[in-house]
Amino acid sequence: MNRSVLQLATSRRSVRRFSRKPVPMRDVVYALNAARQAPSGANGQPWRFIVVDDPDLKARLREASEKGERSLYENVKGEFREWLLTHGLNPSKSFLEEAPLLVAVLMEASAEYARESVWVAIGHMLLALEERGLSTMTYTPSNTGLPLAELRAPQGFKLEAILPVGHSDDETPKEPKNDLNEIVFLNNWGEKLTSSEGC
Amino acid sequence: MNRSVLQLATSRRSVRRFSRKPVPMRDVVYALNAARQAPSGANGQPWRFIVVDDPDLKARLREASEKGERSLYENVKGEFREWLLTHGLNPSKSFLEEAPLLVAVLMEASAEYARESVWVAIGHMLLALEERGLSTMTYTPSNTGLPLAELRAPQGFKLEAILPVGHSDDETPKEPKNDLNEIVFLNNWGEKLTSSEGC
Repeated sequence: MNRSVLQLATSRRSVRRFSRKPVPMRDVVYALNAARQAPSGANGQPWRFIVVDDPDLKARLREASEKGERSLYENVKGEFREWLLTHGLNPSKSFLEEAPLLVAVLMEASAEYARESVWVAIGHMLLALEERGLSTMTYTPSNTGLPLAELRAPQGFKLEAILPVGHSDDETPKEPKNDLNEIVFLNNWGEKLTSSEGC
Repeated sequence: MNRSVLQLATSRRSVRRFSRKPVPMRDVVYALNAARQAPSGANGQPWRFIVVDDPDLKARLREASEKGERSLYENVKGEFREWLLTHGLNPSKSFLEEAPLLVAVLMEASAEYARESVWVAIGHMLLALEERGLSTMTYTPSNTGLPLAELRAPQGFKLEAILPVGHSDDETPKEPKNDLNEIVFLNNWGEKLTSSEGC
């Protein structure tokens, strides 16, 4: 019995701790098949995905990512700093080694609307992974160039995100979301959809 | 009976011609509820959505968008120009008036990972609309500032896309997609997932 898109979107949350339970490759392939069906600027399909299950490579990606994070945490200011602190986040990115699989998402930077396209595809992936009972989060390293160097991609490709994929071992509840009437307007900014139009 | 995420992603395609059949507001609200559940940088939820059903405003958005398109088409070069020409595209954006509803997607530009977050949310919306039997496309005006001015958003918000929403009257087939083994690698760039790992 398939769940609806809204059920999947609502139940999924970002997960940073994973159990060691293996991830069936067919479930990741399923999610990548959903991703590759996404629309893209001029159908350029600027996405490439590197599935990483090699422990050495995972360790190198973690090390490279954390180097960038340490620099971020030394320099971050303002609201983002507050958010990081109140959420107990720090430069350690252990999920890059603990998750059974990583999916590095790369982008052909010269494509039309490359970033927009890649993140629509990621939006598809998130729901597809949730459907298969798998958890993830969209981790973008602070300095993407460092882990990218470990992936030996051709010139012209950028690293947009690393998605750790696994079974959740994370009790953190989902972040609260704004109500619809705070973010949706009808014709004019500030004009609410009437409640009769809700679902 | 719900369809799977992969079924929805596979069946959906970008549509530029719409019938006049009305769009139930509850279906758009459904898709927006799926969108607002998306993850975002530091949970900033940088998305705002303006649902447009006012014919005058649709006409003004079309006019403002086409002004930018005419400038693009006069200057576009290279592969993108080829793609536009071979797809019969031109500066006319009639779908902005013909679709019963538009959803303008705005972004709080100062948020962390604002663009990435907004486009994940759009990825959710696309699948949710498809699930409800509605078609759309992700139209980003060439000069977003012109239609944005019609929407009277506060300073700091950018227009990322206008999604025309309706029932398809477009026979254009879906764009072909690259095979998975052209875009997915295992651990090393160029190393294919073995076929036994497919689904």
